[in-house]
Amino acid sequence: MEKPYYAVIFTSERTEGDHGYEEMADKMVELASKQPGFLGMESVRDKTGQGITVSYWDSLEAIQRWKEHEAHKTAQQKGKQVWYKHFSVRVCKVEREYFFEM
Amino acid sequence: MEKPYYAVIFTSERTEGDHGYEEMADKMVELASKQPGFLGMESVRDKTGQGITVSYWDSLEAIQRWKEHEAHKTAQQKGKQVWYKHFSVRVCKVEREYFFEM
Repeated sequence: MEKPYYAVIFTSERTEGDHGYEEMADKMVELASKQPGFLGMESVRDKTGQGITVSYWDSLEAIQRWKEHEAHKTAQQKGKQVWYKHFSVRVCKVEREYFFEM
Repeated sequence: MEKPYYAVIFTSERTEGDHGYEEMADKMVELASKQPGFLGMESVRDKTGQGITVSYWDSLEAIQRWKEHEAHKTAQQKGKQVWYKHFSVRVCKVEREYFFEM
């Protein structure tokens, strides 16, 4: 990815049960990946319900637009009401990076 | 956490088998948490071996010192040789944050 670029770190803990989460999560990944300025995404959740998702964007404006996207706002609302016990969102500027492949 | 602060995003995929990984990982978490400038850590790995660890630091210098810590360097070497198929390290400045508790 060409610098400067930005990372959104989303850490969360899920509530018990699905409640339509998986379907909405898949939709949001698909929708996010079509947004202007989207560069990529990595997401992991373990069996205890702890999750970290990092998405990458080419500007703060692109992140702001995605935050305010109508369908994403609906999902955020549902997240607070039903899906998450707690979450944090951190918007970060990537300063340095290093990759290793075996 | 007081701003400015920094996040190190470590994404990785593990090789098969333990090979002393869990013991070393626990040691590294303990050691990292004692370093000057360490603010916290969040870590998730799923059953497929995909993992994301985010550590938080009060300065780029603290991150650099931890990178060059002798015991950590030994672990990094072992990581490349044995534990990881691939990994990425991204050093980021946190620009904005938002927290939600149910």
